[in-house]
Amino acid sequence: MASSEKCLGKGSSPPGPVPKGMIRLYSMRFCPFAQRTRLVLHAKGIKHDTINIDLKDKPDWFLMKNPLGLVPVLETPGGQVIYESPITCDYLEDVYPEKKLLPADPFEKAQQKMLLEHFSKATPYFYKIPMMSRKGEDTSTLEEELKEKLIKLNENLASKKTKYFGGDSITMIDYMMWPWFERMDTSGLKHCMDGAPELKNWTERMLEDPSIKAIMFDSETYKGFYKSYQEGKPDYDYGL
Amino acid sequence: MASSEKCLGKGSSPPGPVPKGMIRLYSMRFCPFAQRTRLVLHAKGIKHDTINIDLKDKPDWFLMKNPLGLVPVLETPGGQVIYESPITCDYLEDVYPEKKLLPADPFEKAQQKMLLEHFSKATPYFYKIPMMSRKGEDTSTLEEELKEKLIKLNENLASKKTKYFGGDSITMIDYMMWPWFERMDTSGLKHCMDGAPELKNWTERMLEDPSIKAIMFDSETYKGFYKSYQEGKPDYDYGL
Repeated sequence: MASSEKCLGKGSSPPGPVPKGMIRLYSMRFCPFAQRTRLVLHAKGIKHDTINIDLKDKPDWFLMKNPLGLVPVLETPGGQVIYESPITCDYLEDVYPEKKLLPADPFEKAQQKMLLEHFSKATPYFYKIPMMSRKGEDTSTLEEELKEKLIKLNENLASKKTKYFGGDSITMIDYMMWPWFERMDTSGLKHCMDGAPELKNWTERMLEDPSIKAIMFDSETYKGFYKSYQEGKPDYDYGL
Repeated sequence: MASSEKCLGKGSSPPGPVPKGMIRLYSMRFCPFAQRTRLVLHAKGIKHDTINIDLKDKPDWFLMKNPLGLVPVLETPGGQVIYESPITCDYLEDVYPEKKLLPADPFEKAQQKMLLEHFSKATPYFYKIPMMSRKGEDTSTLEEELKEKLIKLNENLASKKTKYFGGDSITMIDYMMWPWFERMDTSGLKHCMDGAPELKNWTERMLEDPSIKAIMFDSETYKGFYKSYQEGKPDYDYGL
């Protein structure tokens, strides 16, 4: 499976053209943003290959594709390039209508986008707290702020009385938020969900999803990668 | 015209329900983000009323609608609330298909979203530079950075060889970027476009658009408002 290929760094040969009938994902195995796109690719059953990028030592040919230098990036056989995780996911939704992940109703769609906007303000906490904690710094204020945000998510779900954030089946917004929850155990943040029982139940339900199961790593692999990451020498090929 | 009504602040009575067959915009007359939504409402000829908000002293009923406390906010007769400027514009595009502003092609749509993402990194400069300049601080580094970003936009337009950023007629991306260009003269930043002739031509063409013409203020009004803004006492009703 191409998603288990070792990452390519500076000086590597650029990959060949994207085969016809496929789409290509430039990724990093442990990147939560790229995981959004991987979940959508898997859920929709889209034929694709994956090129993993060494984010600490990026190939010039990769920077030519995305001047921001970030994953995920999609590339089509015609050489069209799409980056920024929500944009890649919306693009896949537009091009592959097989399994619709966004609601058809404009207001429900807008609600998912607004929720994503709120959630985007929470993602930095998932990095900052473990990093500060490692340095022995006081993380109590940040933890309180994260807890508040998780309680808001909990209220959102509780008021909807649905199993997932977009209804009783998984939709785009669930996949967009999931990667950070998958890592909460490894980052020692699971207790921040103590005041958010509905959200906890949601994480349990999410773990049953075939796409999430197919893509997630076991705790030991996450721990191994995060150790290398926190030491400033991320091993993007950890476990291969 | 409701968009010329004085703004409502803390303690004001909440407005009545949104009349049937209309949509409501919560706005501030000089806000560039709200102007995006106003341009789309005008271009599509959507029947709407406008409630201006005192952003320095927000009504509690407004904060109930948008916990982020920002304009623009849309409200439907059914009480559905939509905020964040790109989300409001996409919502209007979905609900009012009369005059399509987004391309039907998924890749062209993704291109507009990526360009908007790049542009979003430029908007803070339009505030920071005039603010620092007023305090007599050195703005040369920030001006160079802004110039670089404008040159990139210029290259984007030049490589497309089209009149506007989405083709030979105005589309969503043009309206999304326009409000900051409209204010460049007032904020003394026009010289930052000196290395960007195609972009300059684009601004000239944009000034011919009926929706832009209908919504823009004259330089004197902008100057009056910005003076009050820079003094820390923004007069949101300036000129009424």
